[in-house]
Amino acid sequence: MDLKTYLRDVPDFPKPGILFKDISPLLAEPKAMKHVIERMAQMVFEGQVDRIAAIESRGFLFGAPLAVHLGVGFTPIRKRGKLPWRTNRIEYALEYGTDVLEMHQDGVQAGHRVLLVDDLLATGGTMKAACELVEGVGGKVIGCAFVVEIRALGGRAKLQPRRIHSLVEA
Amino acid sequence: MDLKTYLRDVPDFPKPGILFKDISPLLAEPKAMKHVIERMAQMVFEGQVDRIAAIESRGFLFGAPLAVHLGVGFTPIRKRGKLPWRTNRIEYALEYGTDVLEMHQDGVQAGHRVLLVDDLLATGGTMKAACELVEGVGGKVIGCAFVVEIRALGGRAKLQPRRIHSLVEA
Repeated sequence: MDLKTYLRDVPDFPKPGILFKDISPLLAEPKAMKHVIERMAQMVFEGQVDRIAAIESRGFLFGAPLAVHLGVGFTPIRKRGKLPWRTNRIEYALEYGTDVLEMHQDGVQAGHRVLLVDDLLATGGTMKAACELVEGVGGKVIGCAFVVEIRALGGRAKLQPRRIHSLVEA
Repeated sequence: MDLKTYLRDVPDFPKPGILFKDISPLLAEPKAMKHVIERMAQMVFEGQVDRIAAIESRGFLFGAPLAVHLGVGFTPIRKRGKLPWRTNRIEYALEYGTDVLEMHQDGVQAGHRVLLVDDLLATGGTMKAACELVEGVGGKVIGCAFVVEIRALGGRAKLQPRRIHSLVEA
């Protein structure tokens, strides 16, 4: 299945000069979604993952079905101030300024093998911060799974030495 | 299965006086998630739904697995400025001020039977706006599905005459 045909290019979003990869057509096509979830599931062997963690909001669209498919627990990683209970947080650099990710303190336990999920790998800054949140409480990142990877932006290198899996290159 | 045991009460979130129903323990327990998705799926009979639409962000956690489980397309309904392509939008009243929901113009087509999903029914204002977005393009809301319903806040009445389904009362 050529997943690329389910991505819609939107020029100048969220700002001029960016060609945004819209995943809406993929979400709308059940065969394509099934394919994505099954391929992501192949990245882990049964019993080798304790937790799926995904990054708000688009990561939830793939991470949550993957967790249900695999029958493992799901941990949301969210933006500042969204999680209600006690959190660990990490601040990370953006192109201009900084942003924050948070995870509940019981979201991942020491020794948990965690697969991280997001829709798109660009520069990798957000996923690197998410990995560090998980690793900071003793979790082991067994891999980072993406639907789309924009190779030219070098995110793969930034996430080394962690395992990176992506289904489509753009 | 008593889903209530998978909700964590967090006092004074997001502001003093609110007892927040944290769904994290539910997300973390695969048996409970499987139960939720299967019960939501029972709300529709096969072939009677064309689209699952869910409201950012926590609605995605249930709506996306449900769409994959049922094998139907998924449409995200998001906050202002998050969707990249052409959108329809609706402004709706909050306790103080207003907020906006957006849906892509091709997210639902005229005649589509749509099941809307969110994690929690409180006053119902956000879900009502989502229903109106769907109905505004000719979609038919076959029901609104929630994990948790806070009966005292009257959301069910606000959403009439639409069908409301919730799995836990709080």
